[in-house]
Amino acid sequence: MRIGTLHSDDLKASIKNTNMDDPYAKEPEGSALLNYHMTNPTNAEAPANILTESYLTPDDLFFVRNHHPTPLIDEDKHMVNFTGLPSARDPILTEGINLSITDIKTKYKKHNIVSSIQCGGNRRAEMNVIERTNGSPWATSAISTAEYGGARLVDVLKSLGVTHENVESSGIKHIIFVGAEDMQASVPIRKALDEYGDSLLAYEQNGKPIPQTHGYPLRFIAPGHVGVRNVKWVSSIILSKEEATGPWQRGMSYKGFGPSTRSLEGIDVEAIPSLQEQPVQSAITVPTPGTVYQPGDVVTLKGYAYSGGGRGIVRVDVSIDGGKNWLTATMTEGKDQPLDRAWAWTLWEIDAELPEDISDGKFELICKATDASYNVQPDSVEGIWNLRGINNNSWHRVQVVVEEEKE
Amino acid sequence: MRIGTLHSDDLKASIKNTNMDDPYAKEPEGSALLNYHMTNPTNAEAPANILTESYLTPDDLFFVRNHHPTPLIDEDKHMVNFTGLPSARDPILTEGINLSITDIKTKYKKHNIVSSIQCGGNRRAEMNVIERTNGSPWATSAISTAEYGGARLVDVLKSLGVTHENVESSGIKHIIFVGAEDMQASVPIRKALDEYGDSLLAYEQNGKPIPQTHGYPLRFIAPGHVGVRNVKWVSSIILSKEEATGPWQRGMSYKGFGPSTRSLEGIDVEAIPSLQEQPVQSAITVPTPGTVYQPGDVVTLKGYAYSGGGRGIVRVDVSIDGGKNWLTATMTEGKDQPLDRAWAWTLWEIDAELPEDISDGKFELICKATDASYNVQPDSVEGIWNLRGINNNSWHRVQVVVEEEKE
Repeated sequence: MRIGTLHSDDLKASIKNTNMDDPYAKEPEGSALLNYHMTNPTNAEAPANILTESYLTPDDLFFVRNHHPTPLIDEDKHMVNFTGLPSARDPILTEGINLSITDIKTKYKKHNIVSSIQCGGNRRAEMNVIERTNGSPWATSAISTAEYGGARLVDVLKSLGVTHENVESSGIKHIIFVGAEDMQASVPIRKALDEYGDSLLAYEQNGKPIPQTHGYPLRFIAPGHVGVRNVKWVSSIILSKEEATGPWQRGMSYKGFGPSTRSLEGIDVEAIPSLQEQPVQSAITVPTPGTVYQPGDVVTLKGYAYSGGGRGIVRVDVSIDGGKNWLTATMTEGKDQPLDRAWAWTLWEIDAELPEDISDGKFELICKATDASYNVQPDSVEGIWNLRGINNNSWHRVQVVVEEEKE
Repeated sequence: MRIGTLHSDDLKASIKNTNMDDPYAKEPEGSALLNYHMTNPTNAEAPANILTESYLTPDDLFFVRNHHPTPLIDEDKHMVNFTGLPSARDPILTEGINLSITDIKTKYKKHNIVSSIQCGGNRRAEMNVIERTNGSPWATSAISTAEYGGARLVDVLKSLGVTHENVESSGIKHIIFVGAEDMQASVPIRKALDEYGDSLLAYEQNGKPIPQTHGYPLRFIAPGHVGVRNVKWVSSIILSKEEATGPWQRGMSYKGFGPSTRSLEGIDVEAIPSLQEQPVQSAITVPTPGTVYQPGDVVTLKGYAYSGGGRGIVRVDVSIDGGKNWLTATMTEGKDQPLDRAWAWTLWEIDAELPEDISDGKFELICKATDASYNVQPDSVEGIWNLRGINNNSWHRVQVVVEEEKE
């Protein structure tokens, strides 16, 4: 595993790899705009200051967090197999039901939802400053937003005879999605059946077919749930009493350990709940660290705020004096999402005037958000540091430089 | 309005008040076990150290936060009036439908759920230490837990012809509950119709009729929502495009202001979302502040943890060194609640050994919880202080005294 940002020469070498024994030989070309933490599989994110230039993230700025080689699927031949259906009485049904992509596109009404997808490891790099964690050192751009088009999962499941009642009586608790690359993950069945949950079998991203890197031809969109549950290249859907198996569901990857846990010895990892909904989050995307200002300058801060579970953002607070006083930022795009169904980020900005009497040196800008459940971000990284480096939602701090103009 | 803990003599005087012009003349007798912040109306809570002695809170330890004189209702004559029903085609229905308590008890299957109810102002006293806020100075016991028995609201609404579809097409967004004392509050209609939401028209509390103080004969239980939405003495239920009116819904009482807001001048209070679900919370109930230990003593800490929206508690961390190192507490009763339907608190305990080489003096015990969305409590009160003193879920800190035994 290669950790760290690759230089563009390394990237080109990796893309040009033509060794056919290499399962990554046919990877699609990566965006040159991204910072690569890893290739094969790709972990890459946009530079912070361009991430929030548009509300919907363009394909070439969308973060990539893949776990395996990218499959290339023939949409016309691809079938999605449903098993574990509680209504299955007919012997044919015990083998499941297959739907083609055409079935999914034509048999169900198309719905569009705007959803942000955030990696569980977003802002891990800040945890590494305290003590090294495990995984790619994401800055603040392991989050992206798109409009997804597809069939509502609840509509598809209902058409296959799945109801609240037969799910309850069958003891079904989870719905598992298996990707063509053999990655699997699950969400609670409640999420899939919720009339207000907006779970989607998506075939479009920002009005075009889902890009190959992001799950063409079909991606499960679990709005409000961590990125890894939004399974790409969906091939199989299983209703189950148990959650998905494998490292991304039951292993340590998306499990939250305590801040003093340094070893997994003696820890029952499977007993720790898998990450599903994420905590309230925000980050400053503009200015970037190290930007130079003069005393008295007006700094325009911009950023995003997001919370899991569809919980809307009610306020973003910004401080330029270490958290003593707080300014309320202006929320812009995304602010009108319903508070209990806000699947996408809210962008914000504010002008803050630096004091005139500042001594030269470093100066800290801080942001924090409050969501509709009045959950807030914790003050410091230390109290939430964890071995796996996930769920860093501490106050976001950006150090800038303030110095008198050189004569 | 009287602020502060009343002495028992004041309490007796208040209970004995026989002035019949006084709307509070017929208040039911209050529990002598509670600490009274206010009477007429009553605001009272249990001493911390006895609150968590039992998982279900006995009536005489249940916190009381009333807004008006307590109504005394004749159950046999009481009717609950439903209006705004989207299916209303019949002219009779435009006046609404009345259900008696007997109807509610006999026409619908009885469901039992265990739910904690927490006042939005729980732990306000700690905010007052930073700067005075507005309201009763609750310590950590403005939270109680009971098993409620009643009809599921979704069953009642369905029987009256309410469906997802006609709610959507009618533009209904809220369901308003009006109490016999004329207090009203609402929750999103989504909460009422959610098959997994467990909204209840409750006529029992811990196996007995709801106590008069707590809403006899019918209380709306909105599991996972702030106390004030759990309307007592329910007399009228209104489906509506708008949320409830009045100070407890649209006024400042349950609105979250920013930490630097000192005046409401220029603030559009109605535009701030009403408090519904609450953030993740925990508190140490044992030991109480000022308890005296010797160096090397083993301290048994006990407490509760709770989060809004049915989000279960995944971990409680305890520190005895100011947050440098954290011990994982043992979760006891409540720990087996479903993680997406955990309506009640989780109790926890842990033994922590005080160091031998401690210098005499004050010593701080800290707890914090993490919920199923991996939201956490913020480190300090300062960043969440607000004018109204609500939603204090900062790390809970208890100061004890550690000193060498006097010879």
